[in-house]
Amino acid sequence: MGRVTERRRVIRIRDGAVSTRPDTLVAEEPMEIRLGGKPLAITMRTPGDDFALAAGFLVSEGVLASAAELANIVYCAGATGEGGSNSYNVVDVRLADGVPVPDITLERNVYTTSSCGLCGKASLDAVRTTARWPLDTSPDTPVRIEPATLSALPDRLRAAQRVFERTGGLHAAALFTTDGELIDIREDVGRHNAVDKIVGRALQQGQLPLSSCVLMVSGRASFELVQKAVMAGIPVLAAVSAPSSLAVDLAVETGLTLVGFLRGTSMNVYAGEHRLALSPAASTD
Amino acid sequence: MGRVTERRRVIRIRDGAVSTRPDTLVAEEPMEIRLGGKPLAITMRTPGDDFALAAGFLVSEGVLASAAELANIVYCAGATGEGGSNSYNVVDVRLADGVPVPDITLERNVYTTSSCGLCGKASLDAVRTTARWPLDTSPDTPVRIEPATLSALPDRLRAAQRVFERTGGLHAAALFTTDGELIDIREDVGRHNAVDKIVGRALQQGQLPLSSCVLMVSGRASFELVQKAVMAGIPVLAAVSAPSSLAVDLAVETGLTLVGFLRGTSMNVYAGEHRLALSPAASTD
Repeated sequence: MGRVTERRRVIRIRDGAVSTRPDTLVAEEPMEIRLGGKPLAITMRTPGDDFALAAGFLVSEGVLASAAELANIVYCAGATGEGGSNSYNVVDVRLADGVPVPDITLERNVYTTSSCGLCGKASLDAVRTTARWPLDTSPDTPVRIEPATLSALPDRLRAAQRVFERTGGLHAAALFTTDGELIDIREDVGRHNAVDKIVGRALQQGQLPLSSCVLMVSGRASFELVQKAVMAGIPVLAAVSAPSSLAVDLAVETGLTLVGFLRGTSMNVYAGEHRLALSPAASTD
Repeated sequence: MGRVTERRRVIRIRDGAVSTRPDTLVAEEPMEIRLGGKPLAITMRTPGDDFALAAGFLVSEGVLASAAELANIVYCAGATGEGGSNSYNVVDVRLADGVPVPDITLERNVYTTSSCGLCGKASLDAVRTTARWPLDTSPDTPVRIEPATLSALPDRLRAAQRVFERTGGLHAAALFTTDGELIDIREDVGRHNAVDKIVGRALQQGQLPLSSCVLMVSGRASFELVQKAVMAGIPVLAAVSAPSSLAVDLAVETGLTLVGFLRGTSMNVYAGEHRLALSPAASTD
């Protein structure tokens, strides 16, 4: 599956000088996720970790919560690329016997950007309903993180990104322990895919819920990323850039710790500050 | 509709100092697009220009190509927010008499990130089939741009971004003339929405196809953005960051001029270089 990057000819212009050379681009290809043979979702993704992507997507949708619920995942040989070869762009997920197949296959047969319902209120409710592992929101939560630990994560994320350096075209998501140790990192042209790959891999390894982990993303924190973190039982989401209003609202409602603009020793905490080891000054203003 | 930004409380940490203050966030809310009363798509968007967003989405999907084909767009009063008020998150598009309603309503009733078909090949074919205005790919095209003109666009884009400065959380898309004059700019939490709003506004004003315009986007150039440019008849797409492999493939197939890594006097030209006024050196390597 060596298709994480592809080479294309490019004309480079630098201060008026023009040259032609090969360039390395991040690969982007569509993938169809089927559930029990039925088309469920199409996502544009960077090839690789396709089974983890499918599994993680189904965790986000509330279909899967443990490896035991997953029978198997296969590439569909019937989906052919040029010349009749397997395109490796269609995967079929079969649930274990007894695991209910949700009506998601009827209601939502195409992947949405945001995996949300119609209106903000309804979708927030839906997430809370389907989450298998409500986040621990008690003040004496066992998950407690030093801001200094969070400050170290962006550099570690960037250092572990292998494809970005060559293409400049990927998002990354990484899973850390609360001590800041890197557990896993995935890169993808779509940030939601990178998170799905992280979560799917964890499911395959029997590690859900990820209740003592920090998820770090290279870009912004949208509603969908908060949702995916919550569905995987991850209590802390940190982003290099800004969150949206709905991302903050969902984090507040679910008890997720949401950190944005994590740069150097600076960060903004939008929700769930009880998991950060802050000085008392935090609550006196 | 003053919901482009929202205020939330944030805990700021700066070099160990902790303070609490209000912060301005980009608003993100779901919007359902209905076609003739039937739910067609849901997208997470920044409120504002909602009718343009719906119209532009339908241009991208090949449903609309001119203002004459559009009867009207309305907010559905039946969709209520808290307290029974109109949530302004559901819009219904009615086509003019005689305009065929495509089977899109049957096959794809949820908005996809990428608006593409199953496999790369099939989706490329589909775009070429539905594009109403094939791009002029002749060597003596009337659209010709100086690299220096392109180099000036990123600063103009940034200068025109009003919301980004306050939130850091938006993508922007801007339409320029081939002389580099700003025609329109839209900001949105989703980059595909920003482009749809640009295109939809142009449709409403009877300006499609945008055959002598340059579309500039603040981030990366994905397959979907190339597709949207092509469907609107825009011959040149310039991005601040990297394109994906499939974006380049589609640009080559459709004849779109695709420029990436547009920064200062540097840029990479991935396709359609015949529209750039380059020195002869371009073709001698």
